[in-house]
Amino acid sequence: MTDLRTLAKQDDQRPLLCALLRDFHRLGWVSGTGGGICGPASEDSLWIAPTGVHKELVEPQDFFEMRLDGALTSEPAGLRPSECAPIFLAIARATGARSVLHSHALSAVLAADGRQGDTLIIEGFEMLKGVGLSNTEKLSLPVIANTEREYDLTGSVSEALTDPRFSKAHAVMVADHGCYLWGSDVMEAKKHAEVYHWLFEGVVARNRM
Amino acid sequence: MTDLRTLAKQDDQRPLLCALLRDFHRLGWVSGTGGGICGPASEDSLWIAPTGVHKELVEPQDFFEMRLDGALTSEPAGLRPSECAPIFLAIARATGARSVLHSHALSAVLAADGRQGDTLIIEGFEMLKGVGLSNTEKLSLPVIANTEREYDLTGSVSEALTDPRFSKAHAVMVADHGCYLWGSDVMEAKKHAEVYHWLFEGVVARNRM
Amino acid sequence: MTDLRTLAKQDDQRPLLCALLRDFHRLGWVSGTGGGICGPASEDSLWIAPTGVHKELVEPQDFFEMRLDGALTSEPAGLRPSECAPIFLAIARATGARSVLHSHALSAVLAADGRQGDTLIIEGFEMLKGVGLSNTEKLSLPVIANTEREYDLTGSVSEALTDPRFSKAHAVMVADHGCYLWGSDVMEAKKHAEVYHWLFEGVVARNRM
Amino acid sequence: MTDLRTLAKQDDQRPLLCALLRDFHRLGWVSGTGGGICGPASEDSLWIAPTGVHKELVEPQDFFEMRLDGALTSEPAGLRPSECAPIFLAIARATGARSVLHSHALSAVLAADGRQGDTLIIEGFEMLKGVGLSNTEKLSLPVIANTEREYDLTGSVSEALTDPRFSKAHAVMVADHGCYLWGSDVMEAKKHAEVYHWLFEGVVARNRM
Repeated sequence: MTDLRTLAKQDDQRPLLCALLRDFHRLGWVSGTGGGICGPASEDSLWIAPTGVHKELVEPQDFFEMRLDGALTSEPAGLRPSECAPIFLAIARATGARSVLHSHALSAVLAADGRQGDTLIIEGFEMLKGVGLSNTEKLSLPVIANTEREYDLTGSVSEALTDPRFSKAHAVMVADHGCYLWGSDVMEAKKHAEVYHWLFEGVVARNRM
Repeated sequence: MTDLRTLAKQDDQRPLLCALLRDFHRLGWVSGTGGGICGPASEDSLWIAPTGVHKELVEPQDFFEMRLDGALTSEPAGLRPSECAPIFLAIARATGARSVLHSHALSAVLAADGRQGDTLIIEGFEMLKGVGLSNTEKLSLPVIANTEREYDLTGSVSEALTDPRFSKAHAVMVADHGCYLWGSDVMEAKKHAEVYHWLFEGVVARNRM
Repeated sequence: MTDLRTLAKQDDQRPLLCALLRDFHRLGWVSGTGGGICGPASEDSLWIAPTGVHKELVEPQDFFEMRLDGALTSEPAGLRPSECAPIFLAIARATGARSVLHSHALSAVLAADGRQGDTLIIEGFEMLKGVGLSNTEKLSLPVIANTEREYDLTGSVSEALTDPRFSKAHAVMVADHGCYLWGSDVMEAKKHAEVYHWLFEGVVARNRM
Repeated sequence: MTDLRTLAKQDDQRPLLCALLRDFHRLGWVSGTGGGICGPASEDSLWIAPTGVHKELVEPQDFFEMRLDGALTSEPAGLRPSECAPIFLAIARATGARSVLHSHALSAVLAADGRQGDTLIIEGFEMLKGVGLSNTEKLSLPVIANTEREYDLTGSVSEALTDPRFSKAHAVMVADHGCYLWGSDVMEAKKHAEVYHWLFEGVVARNRM
C-alpha cells in the first residue's frame, strides 16, 4: 500500500482520498456506506465520492468531478454523486477549502448533544491549537438541525458559514447526524478531522465524569 | 489479501464471508468462536459457517450448503453446521434475505438491556437511514428472551419476523446474547451490520450520559 | 504472516504463542512487557515466555522449556523465565491445562473491582457458554489479593484451584493486577481468553449503566 | 515492515522512532500532527522529530540532530524542529533519559483532570511495577499548567524534574494538554509509554465507576 505521504504529492488526489476513506472507515467515521469526502480536481473543480457505496471500497475511478458552480464534468457510470455535493460546494465557495469530510462519527453526534442553543463550545484543550486557535480560546461550532433529505441541510450550512460567531470554525455539526469539516487541501482536512474528532471525544468524556 | 469489492463480485461468496468474519472478529462481534454467518450458495441454498470454531479462521471449504427447506447438500468432514442454521433459514424464508449475521457484540447486549417490554426503540439518529428508515422515524426492534439451546430461539425469532410492530426491522435482538441481522445479499448484510452496531453503541452511549 | 490455523497444527507451538502475543498486545492484554504465556512443549513440559521483554516481540527461540515438576530443560541465553512460571506450573498440574495466559488487561482489573468478598460473580450472558457453562448459571471466579512479588501469588492461586466454589472457573483473578486463564491447549486458551475478556467488559459496562 | 526488535538493534535509531510514531498515531497519542518524539543520535545529541507534520508519516531524513546543549547539528530543509525540543533537552539533561515521548493522548488529559493540587496520584495497580515502583507504592506525577506557547512549559517542566516529591516519576503531565514521558533508551520509553497510558486509562475508569 503506497503511504499517504507519497499519495499526497501526486497530482491526482483520488488515490489519497481512497486511502483516507479506508482509514476513516476503520475509525468508524464513515460506517455503513455513510459519510463522504471530496478533494481538489482542478483549479475550479472537486472530486466527489459517490453515494450509497461502502466508502472504504471506493476506487479512484468512482469519483465525480464537479465544478464549483455545480456542473458535473465527469460522471462514472452506474453511480450517483454524494448527496453532500451541494454542501461540499457551498463550503468550498464560502471558505476556500478544497477538501471536505462528512463524518458520521458517533463522537460527533454525542458532542453535539451537549450544545447550548445552536452552538457547541469547546474549550480547555491544547488540541485547539490544531484547528487554529489558542489553547485559551473558546471554539464555537455551529450545530444545525437535521433534515430528512441531506441536501436540505445546504441552507443552514451556508448560513452557519457566514455567521460571525463561528468565524474560527472549520466544522459544521449536524444534530443527531455528524459533521462537515474541511481544510484548504486534503492533508489539512485529514489533520482537522483528527483534531476535531479528538475534541469531540474530549468533550463527551468530560461531560461524563 | 483480495479486497471485499473483488470478492463481492465472485460467484462463490464463501471467500467474501471469510473476509467479513475476519473483520467482524476484529470488531469483537464474533469473539471466542461465537456468532455465525451465512450467504447465498445457489437459488435455493445458503452457505452456513460451522459451529464451535474460531470464526476469523474459517476457510471457504468449511461452509455447509443447506437448502432453504433445511436439507444439507454439502457437509465438510469433521465440522458441525452452526446451531443458528434453523434461525438463518427461518429468516431467509420469511424475509427473502440471503445473508444473515449472528453477532455476539457486547454493544448489542447492552443496547437490548434498554428494552421496553419486548421492544428496543431507536430514534433520533441520521444513521437510521442506513437501515431503510427516515431519521424522524422510530425503529422498533424485537428483543426475544434467551434460551439454553440456541435452536430453541427459532420459534421466537419466527414470531418476531411476522409481528407487524417490527416490519421495518432487519434485526432480532436476543436479550443477554446478541442479535441476528440480515440483508438481501452479503454486502447489504455487511452494511446493515455496521449501521446496527453503530446504533447500538449510540443508544448505549446516550443512556449513559 | 502465517495464519493461526496453520500455526496451531505445527508440532512446535512456539510460533503460535508468538502470534497470539502479538494479537494480545494489540488488544492491551500484555502492555509494557507485562503479562505472559505458556504452551505445551512435550508430554511433561511447557514452553514459557521470558520476563521483562516486550511480549509482542517475543520470538520462538526466546522460550524456556520447563518440566511440570519445575526443572528447566532449555534456557535461552540472556533471558529469564517469566515470574509466572511457578503459577503456570501449578495451574497445569492442578487442571491439566497445557496453555495459560497471564493477562494485564484493564478490563480484568475493573471487573475484579466488582468482587463480593473473594469472588467475582458473572451471570446473565450467553457468552458463559464459551467457557463451559449454561447461560442460566452463575460463574464464580476467585479473586486473590495481589502481592509484591509475583511468585508469592502461587499459594493463593493453588488454593483457589482446589476450592469447590470455583470448580467451573478457567481463570483466577488477581485484584488490581489482572488474571490467569487457561485451556487444555493453546487454541482453547485463546478461545477462553476472548470469552473471559468479553465477560469482563460486559460486567464492567453493566456496573456503569 | 521490519519489526521493532530488529530496528531497536540498529545504530541509527530513526527508523525505530518512525515505526513507533506510526504505532502511537494508531493509538491516538499523536493525532493531528500533535505530539513528538526524540531518541539518541550520538553520545551527546538527540534525533528530534519535526513539528507541524503528520507524525505517522515522518521519515528518517526528517529528524533534526540537536546536541544536549541545544546546538542544532543537522537540519532537514523545509522543516522546523519540534517546539518540544527545549523540553526534551531539559529532560535528557536532568534525568539521563535519551528518548522522550510527548503524548497528546486524551487519557493523559482526563487522568490529569483528577489531580490534587499539582499532583496526580496513581496507586493500587500492579502496572506500577512497569515504571519502577512496587504495587503498594503511590506514584506521584507532577501536573503543570498549560501555556500558550509550548516552549514556555520548559521552566515548569525543569522545576518538576528536580522536585523531590516526583523523584519516582518518568513523566510530567501538562493539564488540558498531555504528558512528557521518557526512558533511558527508545525501547524503555516505549515500555513506559505503554505502562503510563494504561495507568491513565485505569485511573480515569476507576474515577467513573
